[in-house]
Amino acid sequence: MTLAVLPARMRSLVEPLMPQGIEPLWWSSPEELQALAPRAEIGWFDLHTKPPVLAAVASAGNLRWLNTAYTGVDWLPLAELERRGVALTCGTGLTATAVAEFAVMTMLAVAKDYPAVVRAQDRGEWLDRPPGTRELAGSKALILGQGAIGRAIDRMLQGFSVETVTVRRRAGEGALGPGEWQARLREFDWIVLALPGTAETRGLIGAAELAAMKPDAVLVNYARADVIDQAALVEALRENRIAAAVLDVTDPEPLPPGHPLWSLDNAHITMHLSGIPTDPSLRRAAERFARNCQAFTTGKPLEAQVDLKLGY
Amino acid sequence: MTLAVLPARMRSLVEPLMPQGIEPLWWSSPEELQALAPRAEIGWFDLHTKPPVLAAVASAGNLRWLNTAYTGVDWLPLAELERRGVALTCGTGLTATAVAEFAVMTMLAVAKDYPAVVRAQDRGEWLDRPPGTRELAGSKALILGQGAIGRAIDRMLQGFSVETVTVRRRAGEGALGPGEWQARLREFDWIVLALPGTAETRGLIGAAELAAMKPDAVLVNYARADVIDQAALVEALRENRIAAAVLDVTDPEPLPPGHPLWSLDNAHITMHLSGIPTDPSLRRAAERFARNCQAFTTGKPLEAQVDLKLGY
Repeated sequence: MTLAVLPARMRSLVEPLMPQGIEPLWWSSPEELQALAPRAEIGWFDLHTKPPVLAAVASAGNLRWLNTAYTGVDWLPLAELERRGVALTCGTGLTATAVAEFAVMTMLAVAKDYPAVVRAQDRGEWLDRPPGTRELAGSKALILGQGAIGRAIDRMLQGFSVETVTVRRRAGEGALGPGEWQARLREFDWIVLALPGTAETRGLIGAAELAAMKPDAVLVNYARADVIDQAALVEALRENRIAAAVLDVTDPEPLPPGHPLWSLDNAHITMHLSGIPTDPSLRRAAERFARNCQAFTTGKPLEAQVDLKLGY
Repeated sequence: MTLAVLPARMRSLVEPLMPQGIEPLWWSSPEELQALAPRAEIGWFDLHTKPPVLAAVASAGNLRWLNTAYTGVDWLPLAELERRGVALTCGTGLTATAVAEFAVMTMLAVAKDYPAVVRAQDRGEWLDRPPGTRELAGSKALILGQGAIGRAIDRMLQGFSVETVTVRRRAGEGALGPGEWQARLREFDWIVLALPGTAETRGLIGAAELAAMKPDAVLVNYARADVIDQAALVEALRENRIAAAVLDVTDPEPLPPGHPLWSLDNAHITMHLSGIPTDPSLRRAAERFARNCQAFTTGKPLEAQVDLKLGY
């Protein structure tokens, strides 16, 4: 029997799907996780606060496969997992639809200044003029990252007749490569970040890139906070050098009270809400984990396995 | 020369495009409109408040063609225009993109409860859980009306993997007919109204139709207020018999202070903002009007001409 240490909150979804040959042990608190981790050959250690997860990984000496429902894995010790020969599977694609819907919603909300409509209703005030009059139709978007989220955003935007240009690690197939988009920044109404957090994506959007955007450009970040030089962004927003930013991710999280990003009119903060697992995505996570259990016990390739060198 | 009485606010867009043979007279106030109307063979009389427009139409004894940039024409004396042999062209399609973008934005906003996110940012409060967790993907929408707006909404929703069923005056071509959707109401997460205001669409959604919807259904009205029995809707929303309503149109407009629709949590009021002409749609209106001037002087069919019997 292979021992699997799994979160009790997933039990009702996972247990009915588990294949023979795996014995699940369910943890329901950080303390139980820490107690069970050394026995785990298969581990699913997800917690909203990360230090207990990292402690469990460190003490799980028998671990051969670690699963997480998160899409981004930059918070895990990837090099250590590789050295120890532990396979890692992640949540890529499970919440992609929800994140992409959130991203397109906020782009529309910026275009129409929907927050001003919400505030007017709260005051019981009928607006005579639309507070925002931009149309997505006919606008142009640069989408950095062509994982599940970037592809879903691309597909949705095409339904709005947005002209999209995509950037991926390997150029070709109609996409630009990592060094090919900077010189073209001024063409775009929307710059959408949907790439993984890796050493290569850190600081990708700095003062120079912000300066290269046109004044009515909107920067949309559903990737990682550190992809943007946040101090440079705050300056650019304060001086209206770009039109607006949508930030699902910030540094730090939670954003502390009084941080300038809370009160800038042209900063739209969505509190990393987009990717928090919902009922449909938890069901998809359970189903994929069960398929991967089957694959693991029969020596087949795992679905959504992370390349530990690339980091996604 | 054919005399055309046109709004001065459109002059910079229209004048450069005007064909030979038409002499434009520009009005810039309701008084000027009233003074010039009796001379008009071609008229463009649009004003936000309608009584002066109706007075101008009544006194325009030479009128052969009336143009409006509005999509809905239920406020005009259609039977009288028909009797007098006046052709009517309308704004169908000109603002359809903007209206459809507004409609899909508000559907997403209901799904994610985006107003709660806006209010949290205003308070400087980081939310730990998404206030709304519905996904458009995999949901099912009934779209009543397959004019330019209904078709645009349909196309956009398909980019979100929403299963759409459409209703049009004449069934077939994959669409239901006027009597075929009522029995199926319970299937739908979204009921989207995008039909013209006519005698046939008045009161289309009454107490019985609301009762037939499922408890998590959302009613979305970008058509005319009188398509819905508003009193019955307020009751249904108050008792949470349906999940929410998005109302771009209300009775009356503006909605008076203290009206229950302002303060119901599950009523989303967008103040008829969606179709107010924007710069791109005004340019499209000018271009179409100029093409129609050419057609009018050469006896060709007019674009976007209203069937005065059908009312759209």
